[in-house]
Formats: sequence, C-alpha cells, structure tokens
Amino acid sequence: MPPIADFDQMSCPTPRRQHERVLLGHGSGGKLSADLIQRVFLKELGNDVLSSLEDSATLALGSLEPAVDDARSGPRIAFTTDSFVVKPLFFPGGDIGKLAVFGTVNDLAVVGATPLYLSAAFILEEGFEIELLRRIVISMRHACDQAGVTLVTGDTKVVDRGKGDEVFITTTGIGLHAANHALSIRNARPGDQIIVSGTIGDHGMTIMSTREGIEFETALQSDTAPLNDLTRAMLDACPSIRVMRDPTRGGVSSTLNELATASNVGILLDEASIPVRPEVHSACEMLGLDPMYVANEGKLIVVVAEQDCQSLMKVMKQHPLGRDAAVIGNVTADHAGMVVMRTLVGGQRVVTMLAGEQLPRIC
Amino acid sequence: MPPIADFDQMSCPTPRRQHERVLLGHGSGGKLSADLIQRVFLKELGNDVLSSLEDSATLALGSLEPAVDDARSGPRIAFTTDSFVVKPLFFPGGDIGKLAVFGTVNDLAVVGATPLYLSAAFILEEGFEIELLRRIVISMRHACDQAGVTLVTGDTKVVDRGKGDEVFITTTGIGLHAANHALSIRNARPGDQIIVSGTIGDHGMTIMSTREGIEFETALQSDTAPLNDLTRAMLDACPSIRVMRDPTRGGVSSTLNELATASNVGILLDEASIPVRPEVHSACEMLGLDPMYVANEGKLIVVVAEQDCQSLMKVMKQHPLGRDAAVIGNVTADHAGMVVMRTLVGGQRVVTMLAGEQLPRIC
Repeated sequence: MPPIADFDQMSCPTPRRQHERVLLGHGSGGKLSADLIQRVFLKELGNDVLSSLEDSATLALGSLEPAVDDARSGPRIAFTTDSFVVKPLFFPGGDIGKLAVFGTVNDLAVVGATPLYLSAAFILEEGFEIELLRRIVISMRHACDQAGVTLVTGDTKVVDRGKGDEVFITTTGIGLHAANHALSIRNARPGDQIIVSGTIGDHGMTIMSTREGIEFETALQSDTAPLNDLTRAMLDACPSIRVMRDPTRGGVSSTLNELATASNVGILLDEASIPVRPEVHSACEMLGLDPMYVANEGKLIVVVAEQDCQSLMKVMKQHPLGRDAAVIGNVTADHAGMVVMRTLVGGQRVVTMLAGEQLPRIC
Repeated sequence: MPPIADFDQMSCPTPRRQHERVLLGHGSGGKLSADLIQRVFLKELGNDVLSSLEDSATLALGSLEPAVDDARSGPRIAFTTDSFVVKPLFFPGGDIGKLAVFGTVNDLAVVGATPLYLSAAFILEEGFEIELLRRIVISMRHACDQAGVTLVTGDTKVVDRGKGDEVFITTTGIGLHAANHALSIRNARPGDQIIVSGTIGDHGMTIMSTREGIEFETALQSDTAPLNDLTRAMLDACPSIRVMRDPTRGGVSSTLNELATASNVGILLDEASIPVRPEVHSACEMLGLDPMYVANEGKLIVVVAEQDCQSLMKVMKQHPLGRDAAVIGNVTADHAGMVVMRTLVGGQRVVTMLAGEQLPRIC
C-alpha cells in the first residue's frame, strides 16, 4: 500500500556503495525507500509490470501474459502485497490486523479493481500471547466482512524470541478490473484538479501520539478504512478519473511527488484548502511535524479533469468516507516534476518528498 | 508451502488455554502447528476455501465466487502464500531468495496449476547489509527465470535493530488451473500407490548440518527446486493423479498423516523402498533424527491409481527431478487416518505426525 516503498514506486537512482546497510529510513516511503527499490529491486527484478509504478500489478490471465497497457481478452486482475509491522499492535481506531486487511484492499481499490480475495502470512515471535493473536485474527475477520473480501489462504511461521517483534502480517490481494477505465499514475494532465477525500495525518499522528504517550482533548483516532466502496461509487459516477492513490507511508507530499514525476507535470497546492483536524494540527505542532508527510490509512488522492470535478466531489461528499473531501490544488504544465504549495501566509514553497524517516513502523 | 502450518492444513482441536504463548513448535509443520491453525485461524476465519486443506486456494474469477469443487465458467486460478524465515540465509544448494520463489511455485504446481506470477514482500532489519540483500534478490531473479514465473509486485518494510532477523521474505503466487484435473488431498482411495519423487531429508539436513557446523565426506546440499515442469509432465501423461504434495516442514510423515486424515484412508509404507542419501542417513543418525520428519524443498509425494502407477513412474524417472522416484507404499482401507510402516527389520510401526519442533526456521 505505501507509495514508493512498494516496488512499483521509485526514482532517484544513486551509485552503489560498499558495506552499505539498511536504515530505518529505507522503510519510510520517502526518498531512501525509492533509492533502495530502484538500486536493488528494480535493477535486478525490473519488468514491465513491476516497473509500471502502480499500487497493484495488472495481469491478464486469459493470455498468460502481463497486461500493462490495455484490456486484452480474458479477465484482468489486480495483484498487490504488503507487510505490516506497525507498533503498537493495537491503537485507537484499529490494530495491525485491520490495517493489514484494509491496506491491501485499498491498494486494489485505487487501481479501480474490485477486491475479492486475500492471503495472510504471519511471522510470530516465540512467546507472543495467543490471546492477542486471536484478537488480531478476529479483527481481520471483521475487516474482511466490512470490505467484502474473503481470506482464502495463509501461512504461519515462528521465529525465536528476540528475532521478531510479536507479529508481522503480510497480506496479498487479488481484485478484478472493470473494463471501462484505466487509472494510472502517469495520466495526470495540466488543468486537472486534485482532490483529497478527507482530513490528512490522522493515522500517523495517532500512532505517534500513542507511542509518545501524548493525550489530546479530543482523542486522535486512526482513519484506517476500506476505500473500495467509495472508489466504486466514484468510478461508477465518473469513469474518467485519471489517478487514485492512497497516501500512506510518506504522506500526501510523497504521493504527489511521485505523481508529478510519473506524469511529468507540476502540481500547485493551496495550503488553506487542505483539511487537517485541529487535534492532528496540534499534535504536529507539538512534535514539529508537517501533516503533509504523515501517513494516512483511509484517504484518497484523486486526479480528475476539471469539467468532472464538481460532479465527482458531489458523489464523494455523499459517502461517509468522503464527507470531508476537498479540492486541494491542480495540475500544471509549469514546474514539471515538482509540487509547489501556496502557503497560508501568501508565499509559495516547494513540497519535497520525505527525505529521512519520520516514524518507523507506522504500518 | 509447508503442509499443516499453512492455514489450509490442520486438525486436532484442543481447548482454549489462558495466557498461552507461541512456541517454536507452533511453526514446525506438525501437531502444534495444526493445533494453532485450527484453534485460532480456522476458528475465526474459516470458510470453504480456507478450510479445504489444499496447498493453494482455488478461485473462479469469472463468477466472483470461490470455486471449491468444480470448474465453473471463467478461468480458475490457484493462489498461495508463504513467509520464509530460514537461517542461515545462504546454505549449500540455495538461499532464502531461491527458497521463497521455489516454495511458492511448488505450492501452485502440486495443485496442478501453472505458476505465473509472484509477489514478494521483504521485512528488513535495520543494519542488514545491502550487498547481501542484492545477492538474495539476484538469486530470486534466477529462480523466477528457472521456474518461468514473473515477479510483478512487492513491498519493503524496515524494522528496528533487534526486532527482526536480517530479512524475512513473504512470497505469494498466482497460477492458472488446467480444466482437466481436480487434485485434492481428499482423493486418495484404497489400492492407490504412493510415490516419492526422490531422496528425502536433503534440505532439512543441509540446514541443520550448516548450523551445527557438521561436515560430511560428501557435502550435503538442499534439494530446493521448482517442481512445476515435473508436475506438468506428470499431469500431461497421467491426468488421473489423485493427489500431489510437497513434503516440506514436518517432512514426509506429516504430509502422509494429513493425507490419511483428509482422505480417511490408511497408508502402509515399506521402509526399504524409501530413498535416503547415505550422507543424509549418517547426519540423521548422528543427530538422532528420523528422515521421515525432515523437510524437503524439491520433492513430491504423489498418490495414483495402481493401474497408472508404472506409466507415471516412467515419466517421472525421465525427468531430472524425478530420477530417483520410488513407490514407497500404498493406500489401504484398514487403519483409516493412520500411517503404518513395514520396518527394515520386519516389524511394523506407526508413523505419527511431528509432535514438537525438530528444527526451527527450516524455511
């Protein structure tokens, strides 16, 4: 699910270095992730599908050939995987199990597919309490029911004490593509509008506050949610949507930077229009963070042609998960590959991709 | 891939216990694994497909419905997942990357599907050397080439030092079912013959010897290999094959016990006919182990009707991965659910499922 740190999302190759080691930042969803993916994974494993920069791979089963660009004969399926290593395992609004189901469901949803089946592989640490595992598994069942998917296969491994951390879950999902749209991160065009489906930073600030033991007057809560019902309503109403993405690790800024690079366009944002909950704003101020870089687990970034924007916004606002949707900017021909923000005080600043690591193990 | 510890393979429910914790044996592929799967995973998540006891789930995409029993309209796909946590990462004959590709390929192959696509999700420990990661990734590319599959999507997460162990890899695979056979662990019938495709215990004893620092005159080597070319040749020649399984974690004995239970038949083995390399035999004697419980990563257990057995054996022996194939026993109506072995010294003994944990992190 997390942009950039998925293989399918990377840029910035840098030269090979001796005795280089994995850093926490390599899992950030930002520049270091992109670098690792590019230099190690895509360099050695790259192919048309893996390198296509989408949140899920699109495969044509009828022909036994990858379907990169077009709808061929036979059903086209979407296929995506993510490991979940979030700490703490339970947090306000969710837990690792719910996150593992919704995260993969959302990666299928944003490419326009109907999520159908999941697999789940558990890596358990020796000594982990089985009652906690049970709670997580029950949460996964509820999440599957809510998203309308079936968990059909799985695996468990156990590692010795001190060689894991309670439980890691890897979910992989299969979805079925509809024939009538072809969403792609390369599709944004100058003049298009950029919509966010709701408030940003809720998930990341919830995890961070829980870990730091910070309390706020209004309790923070993760936004983790399955987006497939919302995306289905959106695509039914507006099949011309160009791109959808869920801005997870690395936040909205990293997603928009990937988009600007992949579509070779500029992006101009209006800071005043970006919805942020007051409690998320306060928590960010307290910890010195920019909500633009904070992970979301139930939000969409959508790019749509200007003439379809208002009708799409109407559909989104009628859905519980799109009630706070807002147009936050537009696509430009200027400053291709860059994201620029009109700030609250009237100036402009460049919004770069997350450079280091804001918070390890956010998902 | 490893029987039993896949969700799809379990038995022996036992009552819920307070404050129970995960043991290494819960990952053994034997009784404890079965118990955990039954009591936690299947109890909370069970459905027709997950509970069907096969190495891969079978799904019908055309109808948006799981296809459990029959070929419906639309292609039927096979779907399977496994996490790999083997230690050491590199061993004679292979490495974690090769194992992760072949393990999932084999789970697709044994249900009769043609493996097509893989995903790979990496959980990296902070501080892991990137050059080692690169070696593993290159090995995965070679393994994909050898098996004829494409790695189309992936993910990377990083956990803090001391919360993981260098690298864990979860691979998930999609394969396409042919229409003309329906292999199932429930299909064995009295009179059927049981074939093993080659020597047993090679992988497990290689890992164990490497860890213990034991050297043998003839170097032990893991048997890790992609079985899809062999299974394709076998199914083309003999579409009436009843069951195929790869006897991984828990070894041949655990696979045969699952089979006896699922098909509600007895199994009678002839110890003298079971192929074991002399060096594996020696290593087992030295460490006090029974090769019947040791993991394999490139072997098949096959159940076939008696009248087709010799023609199938001929096809298997012509394939490099089936050269040492042997008929090791037969299916009986007697002692349903039990595996009995005629021993070398002339007596009989019951061969039970692996009870504890022989060697953690074998795959």
